[in-house]
Amino acid sequence: MTKHDPGRSGRHFLQIPGPTNVPDRILRAIDRPTIDHRSSEFAQLATECLEGLKTVFRCTGPVIIYPASGTGAWEAALVNVLSPDDRILMFETGHFATLWRKMAERFSLEVDFVPGDWRHGIDPAVVESRLSEDKEHAIKAVACVHNETSTGVTSRIAEVRSAMNATNHPALLLVDTVSSLGSIDYRQDEWGVDVAVAGSQKGLMLPPGLSFNAISAKALDASRAAKLPKLYWSWGEMLSSNRSGFFPYTPSTNLLYGLREAIEMLVHEEGLENAFRRHARHGEAARQAVRTWGLELVCLDPREYSNSLTAVLLPDRHSEVQLRQVILEHFDLSLGSGLGKLADKVFRIGHLGSFNDLMLCGTLSGVEMGLEKAGIPFRKGGVAAAMDYLNCTPRA
Amino acid sequence: MTKHDPGRSGRHFLQIPGPTNVPDRILRAIDRPTIDHRSSEFAQLATECLEGLKTVFRCTGPVIIYPASGTGAWEAALVNVLSPDDRILMFETGHFATLWRKMAERFSLEVDFVPGDWRHGIDPAVVESRLSEDKEHAIKAVACVHNETSTGVTSRIAEVRSAMNATNHPALLLVDTVSSLGSIDYRQDEWGVDVAVAGSQKGLMLPPGLSFNAISAKALDASRAAKLPKLYWSWGEMLSSNRSGFFPYTPSTNLLYGLREAIEMLVHEEGLENAFRRHARHGEAARQAVRTWGLELVCLDPREYSNSLTAVLLPDRHSEVQLRQVILEHFDLSLGSGLGKLADKVFRIGHLGSFNDLMLCGTLSGVEMGLEKAGIPFRKGGVAAAMDYLNCTPRA
Repeated sequence: MTKHDPGRSGRHFLQIPGPTNVPDRILRAIDRPTIDHRSSEFAQLATECLEGLKTVFRCTGPVIIYPASGTGAWEAALVNVLSPDDRILMFETGHFATLWRKMAERFSLEVDFVPGDWRHGIDPAVVESRLSEDKEHAIKAVACVHNETSTGVTSRIAEVRSAMNATNHPALLLVDTVSSLGSIDYRQDEWGVDVAVAGSQKGLMLPPGLSFNAISAKALDASRAAKLPKLYWSWGEMLSSNRSGFFPYTPSTNLLYGLREAIEMLVHEEGLENAFRRHARHGEAARQAVRTWGLELVCLDPREYSNSLTAVLLPDRHSEVQLRQVILEHFDLSLGSGLGKLADKVFRIGHLGSFNDLMLCGTLSGVEMGLEKAGIPFRKGGVAAAMDYLNCTPRA
Repeated sequence: MTKHDPGRSGRHFLQIPGPTNVPDRILRAIDRPTIDHRSSEFAQLATECLEGLKTVFRCTGPVIIYPASGTGAWEAALVNVLSPDDRILMFETGHFATLWRKMAERFSLEVDFVPGDWRHGIDPAVVESRLSEDKEHAIKAVACVHNETSTGVTSRIAEVRSAMNATNHPALLLVDTVSSLGSIDYRQDEWGVDVAVAGSQKGLMLPPGLSFNAISAKALDASRAAKLPKLYWSWGEMLSSNRSGFFPYTPSTNLLYGLREAIEMLVHEEGLENAFRRHARHGEAARQAVRTWGLELVCLDPREYSNSLTAVLLPDRHSEVQLRQVILEHFDLSLGSGLGKLADKVFRIGHLGSFNDLMLCGTLSGVEMGLEKAGIPFRKGGVAAAMDYLNCTPRA
């Protein structure tokens, strides 16, 4: 909290689409002395985290934990399975997909970038046609962003997998689950994903600082032949150390305390299915508010609505930067900005992670009052519509 | 947080009229090792707290800090200035006034208890007539509850003082400021209050466990002749130890860490006047919601509306116990119950302490959705009315 800010009392509403609100229980778990990362106590902690993450990714293969942010796990996904000049099929679903593409190019990969309008997810038919055309199997990987944090659009990964299967193409399936894992249904094994990428600061309710790769047997095989140089991101050394509960370099011990607590809360207490239903209910309530305001969702296909965030287009000539500034100043509410080509046109309401009905009502109230204060044309009643939806829709 | 409660995510809304939400900064201040309470470091801490409290009570006389809850400071106010069989004038403004009266009787005081309907504050004209009739000055003290936490009614202490002055009666003025201090304007010296009673867990944003007496010179004089037995509550020993920054018995060291931080936040950062305006704005917004719902405020006189809580009457044959149960279960929101003769008829919305616009909107959303879920006849639109009021009313 800034000092000498006379208008500031009570809790800040952190409703960017991640980092998300860290529950007190997780903060308290982190707030313990750092232990020796070569001790048996550490090995126990790491093993619990590594096993617990499999239940979150719904996989039987190994999960890697990097002391790094999500961008690191993106890089790890590429450098562990690919070699220079390998072809990779990517999709312009939004800002983060575009950034991942830039990273691939930095590593001398040949990117087939399927253009998109930033308002739709990946079209499984395009996946099927692109792979069918690739008779020589030059494409080594298909890289998808599951939930585009810049647009609030969720691609249907199960259908992408079916499209790949229909072609019998051997490409690996890499999926960025940064803003979906723990909030939106994700099934690594069932969907045949080879490498998943995720971070600690979204559905897992942790501070930023950890990121993950969940790895299939096929990806592991591919990693043995992959020639892109790596050391920090190398799965081989990591998995070898992890077998005894250790890391090849210094791990983020205190964030692992938090991760253990987060897994306990998400998997064993709330349960993943309940968490997905909670986010689906809040996502729809937020969309009801947006519709009532007469504003436009960025996402155009109802099958692709994101349940972890809602991205909202402002009418022409109105600035989301100014709107968010007014809302922050008057209501101590942080919302997500427009990214890339949506800058100053779109604001984003995060409703992922540790969140409940009244936090959503408070958030939507801040948006509704802010729209009026900022002089943006809209219709009142969004909060009331969200309340009506919440009240007639059971939690689980 | 209860474990294995699959419906529970995000923050609990603690909107009983105290204990209030403790800011993280205060929790962190408390979360430090306990120090030697005979050390110079402790003396510095205690002196800062004792001096800082004078700015909160707006007094120049001493303030006493008890390791006790508010009921203890009530008892201290009586036993330090009165003797067995002394007469004391008290007013039936609600549940807490009634409890204080019972305490006075336990100490063999003769209570003149002015009856009331629990929907009005103290009538200054009654104070004047009662004291005028007391030609022999048998009444030694007039005891008032500033803000009745059971009813949401704030008595006008400045006018009570004027009424006393008009009679030239020498009775002491004792005031319970438990749910007003730091939230509603209170001026110990200007209003000529002799003993104020307060606690840590309301406007001061601390956990429960500390309570206070602020003492005038006249009260201090009276204490020298007072014959009710006391040791723990004795001002004499306390003031004598406090002069060097110590206590006659073990103080609540860690709560004093929190108190120092609370004074910094309330007095030096937000400023008392701003805090009062903040609470006034939230009080009126809450009342706008209640009026829109078509429900009745307990408080009947607009001059006596409480800015720290709003007590709401339910229509006949509807149960506040059931309503609060529904709201707690569905929306993780705790509201205050009906107390004493208002039990099961009245619920109370606390909006005191560390609080802001979106916390209020979330709280009112929980009430509005709960009213519908509980099948209580009401009109929707209360949250919208509160938002309209908040948005057209500047913060300070």
